[in-house]
Amino acid sequence: MARQLFHFPLCPFSRKVRILLGEQKLEVTLVVEPFWNHRKEFLDLNPAGQVPVLVDDILVDPRKLPVPKVLSNSDAICQYLNEAYYEGVFMKGDVFEKAEIRRLTAWFDEKFFTEVSGPILYEKVFKRYLGGGGPDSGRIRRALIACERHLAYIDKILTDRYWLAGDGYSLADITASAHLSTMDYFGSVRWDPCPMAKEWYSRLKCRPSFKSLLKDRVSGIMPSSSYEDLDF
Amino acid sequence: MARQLFHFPLCPFSRKVRILLGEQKLEVTLVVEPFWNHRKEFLDLNPAGQVPVLVDDILVDPRKLPVPKVLSNSDAICQYLNEAYYEGVFMKGDVFEKAEIRRLTAWFDEKFFTEVSGPILYEKVFKRYLGGGGPDSGRIRRALIACERHLAYIDKILTDRYWLAGDGYSLADITASAHLSTMDYFGSVRWDPCPMAKEWYSRLKCRPSFKSLLKDRVSGIMPSSSYEDLDF
Repeated sequence: MARQLFHFPLCPFSRKVRILLGEQKLEVTLVVEPFWNHRKEFLDLNPAGQVPVLVDDILVDPRKLPVPKVLSNSDAICQYLNEAYYEGVFMKGDVFEKAEIRRLTAWFDEKFFTEVSGPILYEKVFKRYLGGGGPDSGRIRRALIACERHLAYIDKILTDRYWLAGDGYSLADITASAHLSTMDYFGSVRWDPCPMAKEWYSRLKCRPSFKSLLKDRVSGIMPSSSYEDLDF
Repeated sequence: MARQLFHFPLCPFSRKVRILLGEQKLEVTLVVEPFWNHRKEFLDLNPAGQVPVLVDDILVDPRKLPVPKVLSNSDAICQYLNEAYYEGVFMKGDVFEKAEIRRLTAWFDEKFFTEVSGPILYEKVFKRYLGGGGPDSGRIRRALIACERHLAYIDKILTDRYWLAGDGYSLADITASAHLSTMDYFGSVRWDPCPMAKEWYSRLKCRPSFKSLLKDRVSGIMPSSSYEDLDF
């Protein structure tokens, strides 16, 4: 069966795991899961009913067949991959450096998702599937304004740092770029006023781990013209 | 200056950190922060504007004074405390056992907070401070129904386990009990249909680390009659 990731193409939490798998050069079969349908077999894998879910085949006993291990929640999956493979290279440093990686990872998974990527995804994508009516333009406008504020914040941070949480490429860069890439699909990021953030994102976009994200397409929603452009 | 925690009494994320500090027997000065006022000095500590924020005095150089280190985001703070003191005892095990601790921690911090503790806190407490009108009884009712579903889920898990994520008391127990204790303040948990969950919570409630939570009071909102009762 090998390794499988149940995901949704524009889900930033799934994208985090996909980028990390790409960085670790781990093969994976991507399975699109329309989680809003609450498929019974999927709820058996993850009672929370959310993507991503990773099924990793593990050789527990060399004389036996590999055992499929089910992991859910993007943070639990990323920490698992980071610890099980490559010796934790994406969460390196002393206790304070690790705390900074975790603070910025949570910043995007919680604050940015609540104020920006969550509302935009709901209004532009999930309402189509859930039948919640047309997009709420006021809510989209507020999310876009919040996005500018968040981008200005990381632009300021990146004035003194090569990577988001410090000297090393970490889970913070992976998480932030996953959320921003979803926004970028819709052409919703104003990069020009934030040159440091733009330069940082363009470095991430060029990495092989980003390639599969740039090929994502969702029926009925075309990406912005610069979405795949490495020189945006 | 010693160690300071900026918190809000009924905030489940602050409570997580308080329980952990209690388990680690680390002295701390609690500072109530009305974070909704966006106090400038507080935003300087945490640009996200949220509690909890921990200021930990660290002796970097024995010939000099301790240096205050600022940590924000409850997960980053808990992982920091767990790694910096007591050798990670609250996140023990192999990669799969750790993934289970993280999955259940995220379950409460994300799913339970979104569906239950977040709406209840907003409707019953923060609307008073933010001036959002009276509580929305429909929203409270939906949160209470969701709470029963979550409690039934952990009741099922606890049929086979002594602690939430397995054999050891972990960050998952701390996180789940922090959120449930907030709900319990309002008398919003129906324990009786879930005997395993009730037995587990009563074990946690008896621990010395819970004592300071049970003494919390918020002006104008009295706790339920059984909130402090160890034999509820």
